[in-house]
Amino acid sequence: MGVSVFQEIVGAKGHLIDSDILTNVFDTVIACQCTYEVLEFAIGKTNDEVSQIKLRITAHNEKQLEQVIGDLMLLGCYRLEEKEVVLKTAAKDGAVPDDFYSTTNQKTAIFFKGQWLSVNNQRMDAIICLNNNSATCVKLRDIRKGDLIVCGHQGVRVTPEFKERDRFGFSFMSNDISSERRVETAAAKIAAMMQEIKAQNGKIAMVAGPVVVHTGGVPFLSKLIKLGFVQALLTGNALAVHDIENSFYGTSLGVDLEKGLPIYEGHKNHMRAINTIRNAGSIKDAVASGILKSGIMYECIKNNVPFILAGSIRDDGPLPETIMDLVKAQDQYANLLAGVNIVICLSSMLHSIAVGNMLPAWVKTVCVDINPAVVTKLADRGSSQAVGIVTDVGLFLDLLSRKLSP
Amino acid sequence: MGVSVFQEIVGAKGHLIDSDILTNVFDTVIACQCTYEVLEFAIGKTNDEVSQIKLRITAHNEKQLEQVIGDLMLLGCYRLEEKEVVLKTAAKDGAVPDDFYSTTNQKTAIFFKGQWLSVNNQRMDAIICLNNNSATCVKLRDIRKGDLIVCGHQGVRVTPEFKERDRFGFSFMSNDISSERRVETAAAKIAAMMQEIKAQNGKIAMVAGPVVVHTGGVPFLSKLIKLGFVQALLTGNALAVHDIENSFYGTSLGVDLEKGLPIYEGHKNHMRAINTIRNAGSIKDAVASGILKSGIMYECIKNNVPFILAGSIRDDGPLPETIMDLVKAQDQYANLLAGVNIVICLSSMLHSIAVGNMLPAWVKTVCVDINPAVVTKLADRGSSQAVGIVTDVGLFLDLLSRKLSP
Amino acid sequence: MGVSVFQEIVGAKGHLIDSDILTNVFDTVIACQCTYEVLEFAIGKTNDEVSQIKLRITAHNEKQLEQVIGDLMLLGCYRLEEKEVVLKTAAKDGAVPDDFYSTTNQKTAIFFKGQWLSVNNQRMDAIICLNNNSATCVKLRDIRKGDLIVCGHQGVRVTPEFKERDRFGFSFMSNDISSERRVETAAAKIAAMMQEIKAQNGKIAMVAGPVVVHTGGVPFLSKLIKLGFVQALLTGNALAVHDIENSFYGTSLGVDLEKGLPIYEGHKNHMRAINTIRNAGSIKDAVASGILKSGIMYECIKNNVPFILAGSIRDDGPLPETIMDLVKAQDQYANLLAGVNIVICLSSMLHSIAVGNMLPAWVKTVCVDINPAVVTKLADRGSSQAVGIVTDVGLFLDLLSRKLSP
Amino acid sequence: MGVSVFQEIVGAKGHLIDSDILTNVFDTVIACQCTYEVLEFAIGKTNDEVSQIKLRITAHNEKQLEQVIGDLMLLGCYRLEEKEVVLKTAAKDGAVPDDFYSTTNQKTAIFFKGQWLSVNNQRMDAIICLNNNSATCVKLRDIRKGDLIVCGHQGVRVTPEFKERDRFGFSFMSNDISSERRVETAAAKIAAMMQEIKAQNGKIAMVAGPVVVHTGGVPFLSKLIKLGFVQALLTGNALAVHDIENSFYGTSLGVDLEKGLPIYEGHKNHMRAINTIRNAGSIKDAVASGILKSGIMYECIKNNVPFILAGSIRDDGPLPETIMDLVKAQDQYANLLAGVNIVICLSSMLHSIAVGNMLPAWVKTVCVDINPAVVTKLADRGSSQAVGIVTDVGLFLDLLSRKLSP
Repeated sequence: MGVSVFQEIVGAKGHLIDSDILTNVFDTVIACQCTYEVLEFAIGKTNDEVSQIKLRITAHNEKQLEQVIGDLMLLGCYRLEEKEVVLKTAAKDGAVPDDFYSTTNQKTAIFFKGQWLSVNNQRMDAIICLNNNSATCVKLRDIRKGDLIVCGHQGVRVTPEFKERDRFGFSFMSNDISSERRVETAAAKIAAMMQEIKAQNGKIAMVAGPVVVHTGGVPFLSKLIKLGFVQALLTGNALAVHDIENSFYGTSLGVDLEKGLPIYEGHKNHMRAINTIRNAGSIKDAVASGILKSGIMYECIKNNVPFILAGSIRDDGPLPETIMDLVKAQDQYANLLAGVNIVICLSSMLHSIAVGNMLPAWVKTVCVDINPAVVTKLADRGSSQAVGIVTDVGLFLDLLSRKLSP
Repeated sequence: MGVSVFQEIVGAKGHLIDSDILTNVFDTVIACQCTYEVLEFAIGKTNDEVSQIKLRITAHNEKQLEQVIGDLMLLGCYRLEEKEVVLKTAAKDGAVPDDFYSTTNQKTAIFFKGQWLSVNNQRMDAIICLNNNSATCVKLRDIRKGDLIVCGHQGVRVTPEFKERDRFGFSFMSNDISSERRVETAAAKIAAMMQEIKAQNGKIAMVAGPVVVHTGGVPFLSKLIKLGFVQALLTGNALAVHDIENSFYGTSLGVDLEKGLPIYEGHKNHMRAINTIRNAGSIKDAVASGILKSGIMYECIKNNVPFILAGSIRDDGPLPETIMDLVKAQDQYANLLAGVNIVICLSSMLHSIAVGNMLPAWVKTVCVDINPAVVTKLADRGSSQAVGIVTDVGLFLDLLSRKLSP
Repeated sequence: MGVSVFQEIVGAKGHLIDSDILTNVFDTVIACQCTYEVLEFAIGKTNDEVSQIKLRITAHNEKQLEQVIGDLMLLGCYRLEEKEVVLKTAAKDGAVPDDFYSTTNQKTAIFFKGQWLSVNNQRMDAIICLNNNSATCVKLRDIRKGDLIVCGHQGVRVTPEFKERDRFGFSFMSNDISSERRVETAAAKIAAMMQEIKAQNGKIAMVAGPVVVHTGGVPFLSKLIKLGFVQALLTGNALAVHDIENSFYGTSLGVDLEKGLPIYEGHKNHMRAINTIRNAGSIKDAVASGILKSGIMYECIKNNVPFILAGSIRDDGPLPETIMDLVKAQDQYANLLAGVNIVICLSSMLHSIAVGNMLPAWVKTVCVDINPAVVTKLADRGSSQAVGIVTDVGLFLDLLSRKLSP
Repeated sequence: MGVSVFQEIVGAKGHLIDSDILTNVFDTVIACQCTYEVLEFAIGKTNDEVSQIKLRITAHNEKQLEQVIGDLMLLGCYRLEEKEVVLKTAAKDGAVPDDFYSTTNQKTAIFFKGQWLSVNNQRMDAIICLNNNSATCVKLRDIRKGDLIVCGHQGVRVTPEFKERDRFGFSFMSNDISSERRVETAAAKIAAMMQEIKAQNGKIAMVAGPVVVHTGGVPFLSKLIKLGFVQALLTGNALAVHDIENSFYGTSLGVDLEKGLPIYEGHKNHMRAINTIRNAGSIKDAVASGILKSGIMYECIKNNVPFILAGSIRDDGPLPETIMDLVKAQDQYANLLAGVNIVICLSSMLHSIAVGNMLPAWVKTVCVDINPAVVTKLADRGSSQAVGIVTDVGLFLDLLSRKLSP
């Protein structure tokens, strides 16, 4: 008797099998120490048809039931009965009620006044705020006293991305992160995607670390910018410093990139580069006055490609354009990422994780790094969202720029 | 004849052979395409005696001569003739004359008004400012218009650290970074150093990343704090977030540390932890009000161990104590590092590099990370200054805390 | 018309959803550029019930159809119509007909004279030979002229292992190979499994490389042997050499394991160790005559734990027990692995891959290595079969032996 | 009094400072807990002049004195008094007297009948055998009863290689193994060395693993063979198997190298390739009969480049040319390496270590691998002998072959 109380019926619809969703649903129920019974299941008879399922979930107590339903919801399950979302008021700035709903990066909607309302600015680890009948992801620190906050799972629906099984344009290597792969193949596919996006006036964002400069990638990334394959550059102080050092002195952290050897006073070159730019006013001023004549930053400025240099605790200088207030830097990163079609992350775990946190699940990400552990970590962030390539980033950019050159 | 113009005689004194200094001096001359002639050499006849050398350097032109002398200076060579340091005035805030002297982390002195003046706050990549007959390392951005800046190499003398060949307390593994080593041995030596420093009321700083929490290191690092083996904690938002998440929910990034499995809504736990602390006001408030009852941050607060949480572009939240203005964060890091005897870096490349930049060459550093490339990079920063240990940081802290427990 | 010829109906039965089998089936059909239609699907209504499916596969030509059916078969699908297996005769020693069936490590049966016959000695990359109504996996080189060889897929059925979803004894970390994990948890579970296997007089095999010695693991692995937790040791010359070097001189590759420093003539110690054993006759003789008194090899011999030292191209010596003929060494490895319950691989990619190739899919494997790329590679070999742990192997063995000590 | 007994005077001569030899000499004395006194020191006044030193070493007892002298000897020090080498007779096959002299890879000579006799076939970890007034390095297992064996250090002199400071042809990156480097520079230098060696009819050996195939390196390495830049290929079964698989089916371990995706029955392709070759008789036969038409093995056979496939415990098949008896395989490796000018190791730690063990210190080695830990390990083997490059081996071979193409 009492037992029957701790039950609920949930449904799910979509490419449940292709995307492992059903497997995860069953695993989740078992992991929560609950049981399931399949009430209805209509399998998609062909690759194009969706499947549909109804499950009865049985838990041992109410808390457990609430938990398992919450977890299933993140997989795209929904309570059959549509209930209004629960809204509570933030009691102070920058904090919310204890039972707030913390977002994933998946498409989310809330059931408000009898209608499903899509959530805007989808990103993970955010709060859903309701304002003028519009729901938006807001960072915790941006909550203001009195804001209406979505709490609990009731009236929240998540629609996971489905694996695009038949479109190999992206899913070409999703399961397998290894240095023992032919990179040429992946580079060709990424080049094709970039060309397609460019043809459609889409937006390609590059996230890059100073290793791009150290490994000799400057001429290749510069060329990609010049050719119009980069619409946004998200990076930090170090990439810009070493790019400018390289432009001024031919070195990167004091190593002569032609000879491969540390050179005279090379350790000082990056400080001289910073000082020269600070004397000029800014990177932009240095380009305008003809002091800075080549490189990644130069091409960004010449080609009106917006860039953001986020500060970090290890920065020297910094350069005038570097944003040392990280609240501002995060906001500008998020703004620049709006509407992006693909993000290519080049040897910068720090900035890549930051960007990954800001993106909705449907923006594709390519992570290139020579360290397989970094690639695994980055590509793990959103399963069907990210592919990883383990290779030398300088040689990869060379390959990519050759494939994209007219 | 003309040739004889591009010559200069330099001297050096110290443990020139034991510390590879002489080798580097000769290598530098050859690498600069100059030649040397040894005029005098008095070898230290025993391990305790110093050696002394006089070299005539011949270059092909004046610029080359200036360059090679500049490079040799960094190795501890000095012009025989003592000349006054060259000072120029900064023309604007945050920038200096083009030929400014950029510091290393080695002991430096300037010859000013006929006397050698030691430079204070020694760190790398800084400017030497003279003020009231006192010379100090200043960060580029902190230069103010009108400051007196040391330029060129004239009148600057660097005294490199010597390798402490007979004191195995520190030099126990300096040349060899490999995961194929017995960690027990290194842990025992570090424990002995920490006990010695504690006995002398010295200062031990820990630099730590969130991996300390993920790998189960919280109880061990907490214990070290409680036992008085930590005088400063330099870290970021993430370590504190996951430490508090672990204290509240027993998870780290949603993984149950007892069971090793992701748990219900675990992905949300770190956001809940942040929100709880923000609701409480601050970490300190949460400890005071009994909300936060254990863990690394708790022990820091209870035992009055100062900590700094530097913000980063990838931060969630952040916690109230996190400093998102990195100019401030860097200044507070540097202040907290003043007078430190040893720095132990635990799985945080970002913060470890930041700290490495701020330290003079004579502060010993131990870098522990499971990634040998990270250890190589960190331990490279100052040759005789840093040792690296490639191991599992959670198990390492367990080992260390067992060795240091009464 | 013609189209309808290139169709076939296949079935599958089992935990199709929990184990991702159905997902893989659909993916395979699409990847082969064929289409499917679900004719029947009965979903397992609860966790214990199995599911059953019937699919119509349509291909563009006969070759494609043959291919997709062959691939589906490896996932456990079978033609609805049972047909006799095709047997052909080997025309020469050590080679087979071109269309031979190459085995996986999954449970396999053949339909012979109207009955399903289980295949013995299941392993991957083998040939199925029929002899006296008995089917066995045979290595290519062991085929003899006239042997009856299974060819094509007809009459072959594969039954994949199902993921043991509710038995967390093993599946505790299968999806996630990272150095950022608490090892304590995994060690406790492995210890529990080992105790259970020992209690049931089961068989635990250790595969180990010399890093076990370098990282100080000798006393811990020795203890596990003494306590009866090791029934077989599969390794190479190097582990034995350095174990004996360590027992004789306290060094491993010349590094003093107590002091962590290279010692006098340490580079020579492993050669001296080999020479001493060769003078004694063998490792066994050296134990018998009291020359070798401790260590891993000593405990194996004292406790009658069989070991095999497989030779490698990089070996010094070798020790008398090392088998330099690899045909023999592979055969002895395979024999020793018969009936094993669990295999624990410790820092030896070479021997671990060798062992992985020899095991059927239902023997569980634990791979411990400090390099995540190695663990990923090893744990990849059989999805639900292997778990990987990224940690310091010396500290891991310490932890494991503490948990298993009475 | 008693003290003065435990003293000895040693000398050394050469580029003692440039090559860190003197630093190591002093370190060694201190590490052995002895003391030194410099009696004479004549420094090389210019880069071309050698230095000369005489040291009095004082130990606490005779054993210690013997030890420190032995260690110093390996650094090139010699007793001032020339004494005859001590020879003892091997009492049985494959074993030697306990106090045998174990060789390093440095140039060695013995003082026999009043003359210095150079040791032939210099390699590390060998025994010096005297036969007909000729001294040769012999592997322990090849010693025969009655052979005359060099014992102790008396009458043995080692002449270490000097760092070639002014010849940047090789020393271009010796100290710095990092993935954060521009590979183009190193590739250009290696290409230049290869061209020089080829112009002089020298001998270039390639050591390669199957990763060369997986990463798409086959066309590039094939081209280098065709162009005459490879005189010897030392590898194992796996490279040949996957090279042939790639030639037959366009896959490597079942992954289609054009599409980057696993293909139909790809897992079986390497077994089919092995079987086809075994049916043909051998790789050579398959080339002769037109079955094998491209790839690394094909080019070796067509261009008469000798290759050796050493067996390993993980091998499938093996191919007919694979030598499964490792005693034979090691001997053939060593024979093929005779007279080699440079060895280029491509992604195979196992075979590279094997080759490293067989080479004298004056044969230069280049190690290319994407894993920095592997490169560090390999490049460590002989300090001034080896350079390491951390990069993607497929892209590296592409780069190298473009630089070497006419």
